[in-house]
Amino acid sequence: MKDMKQNTKKQQNLFSVRTDLAIEATELAQQSTTTHHAPDGVSVHTKQTDQYTMTTVHILNDTGSETMGKPKGTYITIESEGLKENDTFCHEEITNVMAKALSALAKPKEHAVILVVGLGNWNITPDALGPKVVSKVLVTRHLQDSLPPQILEKMRPVAAVSPGVMGITGIETGEIVKGITEKLKPDLVIAIDALAARKTSRINAAIQLSDTGIAPGAGIGNKRKLLNKETLGVPVIAVGVPTVVDAATLVNDTMDKMLSAMREQTEKTNPFYQMLTDMETEEKYTLITELLNPYAENMFVTPKEVDAVIERLSRIIANAINVCLQPQITLEDMNRYTAY
Amino acid sequence: MKDMKQNTKKQQNLFSVRTDLAIEATELAQQSTTTHHAPDGVSVHTKQTDQYTMTTVHILNDTGSETMGKPKGTYITIESEGLKENDTFCHEEITNVMAKALSALAKPKEHAVILVVGLGNWNITPDALGPKVVSKVLVTRHLQDSLPPQILEKMRPVAAVSPGVMGITGIETGEIVKGITEKLKPDLVIAIDALAARKTSRINAAIQLSDTGIAPGAGIGNKRKLLNKETLGVPVIAVGVPTVVDAATLVNDTMDKMLSAMREQTEKTNPFYQMLTDMETEEKYTLITELLNPYAENMFVTPKEVDAVIERLSRIIANAINVCLQPQITLEDMNRYTAY
Amino acid sequence: MKDMKQNTKKQQNLFSVRTDLAIEATELAQQSTTTHHAPDGVSVHTKQTDQYTMTTVHILNDTGSETMGKPKGTYITIESEGLKENDTFCHEEITNVMAKALSALAKPKEHAVILVVGLGNWNITPDALGPKVVSKVLVTRHLQDSLPPQILEKMRPVAAVSPGVMGITGIETGEIVKGITEKLKPDLVIAIDALAARKTSRINAAIQLSDTGIAPGAGIGNKRKLLNKETLGVPVIAVGVPTVVDAATLVNDTMDKMLSAMREQTEKTNPFYQMLTDMETEEKYTLITELLNPYAENMFVTPKEVDAVIERLSRIIANAINVCLQPQITLEDMNRYTAY
Amino acid sequence: MKDMKQNTKKQQNLFSVRTDLAIEATELAQQSTTTHHAPDGVSVHTKQTDQYTMTTVHILNDTGSETMGKPKGTYITIESEGLKENDTFCHEEITNVMAKALSALAKPKEHAVILVVGLGNWNITPDALGPKVVSKVLVTRHLQDSLPPQILEKMRPVAAVSPGVMGITGIETGEIVKGITEKLKPDLVIAIDALAARKTSRINAAIQLSDTGIAPGAGIGNKRKLLNKETLGVPVIAVGVPTVVDAATLVNDTMDKMLSAMREQTEKTNPFYQMLTDMETEEKYTLITELLNPYAENMFVTPKEVDAVIERLSRIIANAINVCLQPQITLEDMNRYTAY
Repeated sequence: MKDMKQNTKKQQNLFSVRTDLAIEATELAQQSTTTHHAPDGVSVHTKQTDQYTMTTVHILNDTGSETMGKPKGTYITIESEGLKENDTFCHEEITNVMAKALSALAKPKEHAVILVVGLGNWNITPDALGPKVVSKVLVTRHLQDSLPPQILEKMRPVAAVSPGVMGITGIETGEIVKGITEKLKPDLVIAIDALAARKTSRINAAIQLSDTGIAPGAGIGNKRKLLNKETLGVPVIAVGVPTVVDAATLVNDTMDKMLSAMREQTEKTNPFYQMLTDMETEEKYTLITELLNPYAENMFVTPKEVDAVIERLSRIIANAINVCLQPQITLEDMNRYTAY
Repeated sequence: MKDMKQNTKKQQNLFSVRTDLAIEATELAQQSTTTHHAPDGVSVHTKQTDQYTMTTVHILNDTGSETMGKPKGTYITIESEGLKENDTFCHEEITNVMAKALSALAKPKEHAVILVVGLGNWNITPDALGPKVVSKVLVTRHLQDSLPPQILEKMRPVAAVSPGVMGITGIETGEIVKGITEKLKPDLVIAIDALAARKTSRINAAIQLSDTGIAPGAGIGNKRKLLNKETLGVPVIAVGVPTVVDAATLVNDTMDKMLSAMREQTEKTNPFYQMLTDMETEEKYTLITELLNPYAENMFVTPKEVDAVIERLSRIIANAINVCLQPQITLEDMNRYTAY
Repeated sequence: MKDMKQNTKKQQNLFSVRTDLAIEATELAQQSTTTHHAPDGVSVHTKQTDQYTMTTVHILNDTGSETMGKPKGTYITIESEGLKENDTFCHEEITNVMAKALSALAKPKEHAVILVVGLGNWNITPDALGPKVVSKVLVTRHLQDSLPPQILEKMRPVAAVSPGVMGITGIETGEIVKGITEKLKPDLVIAIDALAARKTSRINAAIQLSDTGIAPGAGIGNKRKLLNKETLGVPVIAVGVPTVVDAATLVNDTMDKMLSAMREQTEKTNPFYQMLTDMETEEKYTLITELLNPYAENMFVTPKEVDAVIERLSRIIANAINVCLQPQITLEDMNRYTAY
Repeated sequence: MKDMKQNTKKQQNLFSVRTDLAIEATELAQQSTTTHHAPDGVSVHTKQTDQYTMTTVHILNDTGSETMGKPKGTYITIESEGLKENDTFCHEEITNVMAKALSALAKPKEHAVILVVGLGNWNITPDALGPKVVSKVLVTRHLQDSLPPQILEKMRPVAAVSPGVMGITGIETGEIVKGITEKLKPDLVIAIDALAARKTSRINAAIQLSDTGIAPGAGIGNKRKLLNKETLGVPVIAVGVPTVVDAATLVNDTMDKMLSAMREQTEKTNPFYQMLTDMETEEKYTLITELLNPYAENMFVTPKEVDAVIERLSRIIANAINVCLQPQITLEDMNRYTAY
């Protein structure tokens, strides 16, 4: 009985896990098992180079989806410490790697109309990633009437909007995107958003692509209605970067380190120490969250140089999207025909 | 024959006149007649105080509409030199005057859902008026689920969006607004935009309200599809401020002054002088525009302190909208229940 | 021996305590004693109203200075939860309270030349408080030649600069301020900076004034050379607001709550629990800081709505400075003669 | 008699000419003579490529200085229509050309301390060029203590400040720069400012370098005390871009075109036409300025996309300064050791 109850509880916990990253969900799922294989119904492939690690997680069936707390589909994560730094060489490489991964995932048809959606709140720096990407995406759809045919042939019509968040507009973000999608009738939506990480070390150090849609506001604030093929009627590719951890995650990370640092000094049989180490990850997280209220519930943890980092990340992602969507146009041509 | 042709031309000119202000259209119509009455089918009322002049232009029928180059309806203009200055007393008075005029024009029902639309390009300061107003409007629609009923009873649900311009989104602004309107189903749309003036002296010194809808992008760039009751299916109140004149208007204004200054020094029979003074307003404007190309066609004329002026104007307009739409809530209550 | 050593250590700790607030130093000093009196050489007065608590700490002699880790002088702290909220009534009251406290502390002479210095990095929102205040201070010194004498008589000449931080300029901030002070020869310097707090609950909820000078960069980054009467040759009034806590403080606060929450569940004789509760405040803080490295050393904890809060705080402080320095001019006169 | 008086007047006019560009002063001087040689005491060399025209004006002696209304020294102007466009290839070429010209003019010694000064008002976009360049200059002086000697050997210590304008600080800009210079004791000052042009077509299409110092505020607002070797005690290299024309220049340009367009239609003996064409350039400009008051005196003429253009120009100039000052460091090394 107890075991079953515990099992149920564990799964609830997994589903409530506040991580938007498939690789973190994989790690958490692996922690709850004795083996370190990928969970049932999930396949994980990893490619490592000097500059980055690329992990592809396929959630293959309902079992995998249940364990991971995520819809079936493909999740590609590009991780690199260089994303945090002002390292232009690394950034160029990741731009190209992401452009290829995006092409493989989105498979945009030749003259497909693409809508790029920048989710998030432009007034809160770590949540402004989406709007900042949109401001750097090459918007071409309105040029269709004014460009010569030989240029047009090589160019995909791209539109781009930043719908804001409900606190700013008073409207569900999903409703705004749906309204625009119904008018524009794009063949593909690419949605960019800031995500929440569950490890302080991952902040601004990973880009996740997936073909499963996205829930706006995952990074900061509450999750909203999903944007995906079911709700919008067109395929949705999601691009996300973990830009914040909440305060509870930071405390949790630190306490874990503290406990393992104290392991040597403390008898393993010490009941208090036992209590702390025995707690399920999620139990501990919930406890910390409760303790942090009321002051810290609206706090988030962010690096000092957050403005510069978000600026650089938005350039990498926008360039990758531009390279993916307009492969036949040289940068020179782009500059010649597009305004500011 | 000649007369008739000239007449036709004059009317074409009037229709192509690049003024968004009904009071300027009235002035131009009066210039073309010998009398200084209001044109046929147009009524004009003026109220003057120490702080401001309020002019109400009613375009009553098709004749009036044709002469004025504007749709039938009511146009209220509040003019004040104080709008340009950092004069808080004047601004408070104009806020209240505008709130009353807006109420009279829009007649919002008790629990009406209102959509405030900030037109214009946030990257170009004098065109950023609409988006700046939207950022200061009290957005309340999303609070419906979280507020106690006694507060809700007193509050109109207000949503607010800044759809951007076609150069930014690749999508007709009207299409975006229509898509959102169809999802939101508001009872009233209030649209704010920067306008173009035909007199340098009117820049940032007038606010025009009208119940006839609005063509986005009137101030800077090209006019787009109308937003009005026909296109959106709900009444549209337009709020506009002339924030720029184009370079040709500036030159034209100056040359007019130059010619009248030279009147004394020059024989009236001088054929060159005659030629200049005889030119129709629009002919002269067109000539100047041609001469200004190619360099000045993308130039506009703006006061040095444009950022500060647009900031202040957006506060006045947003406050007037807030006072008009939420008359039963005190500022104190507003602050208590609304976030940033 | 042991005791003496411990004593020395405690004092070192106190000196290294990363708090810029005299009231926090007082609390920490009181924690280390059994009684809860003010430390020797320190007097503390508190005034409480509905809206705010004002605490005046006088550090009277070297003993007090040593215990507190702060120079001799007067420290006035105005605390209010309303500072975090968009509560205009509270803000007006605090503006006036701060204006009076500033007058009492600075005692500016009738025609004194005042230099307002906004310390901090304008690229990092919670560190941008100083520059933001400077942008709102009424600068009048350059009007001396253009104003009529009857206005001038009523007006103190005020100058204002934001010198940046060493990472931006490559120059010690103190050197820049000194260079400008030597040219301008003001009678008084008022310096504004963001501070670090040691309690998460104090973020953006307190304003501290002192007559003891200021070390630029106290809030974020390293402390720099002092700006005070000795280094600048003129009295320096410091105005500070705690706008961040570092990650270690957040963890520390949470663990303290966790420990006290667990008190009931845990035997007091449990050695691990004992170990944690016995640790000196500073020891624990240092331990946590070490554990947080390397990822969290550049992290800080900030509320989501930090941009809006810093904007409002800067308005309160700038208005208080304006009211304090220009008491004889009405707001109306100010607006009439000062540009944006 | 008349001739002499006219001559004197012409020279006064030339001295009062509101152009900051030596090439425009040359053109104006040539207009007043029948021949089209360079004026006495002035040598002019021009190099033309596909991408740009580089004109070097040497003012050799007092006669040249008097005719040109500018101090003796070297003025290098790089003109290119590509500067206005988003043409990255052109921008890279001009960056390198400017870096070389700057090296030739400034001849910075190996370990020279350089102070880069960004003049102008960051609140007014076309005047914000200087501060924007400063924000992109590689600041290295503060790294001297933390870098390994083998890196330091290759690096010039660079500091950078934006002193603001008198309307913002209440202090003469020259005084602030002098105060900082006296503390820092640099070997060379490079000062960047927005300039006023006298031809609408030159806006944002030219960069002028000179070794004669600079008068802050030349572009917008009034000229202030000179920053040059005499006033600062160190050589001053000035870098300027014409970013605005005033309204009078725009009107003047247009009227000139109008008059020449009307030449055919009008009898040359027509006295009014004669009057206009006979007016001295400066007389006409003064007349227009008077007519434009009071409304247009604070107006300026600027392209719509001014924000984007100033952003790009500031990157070109900052990069040219970085390449000139740190030739031995690769961009890779720069990125590795310098923060945001």
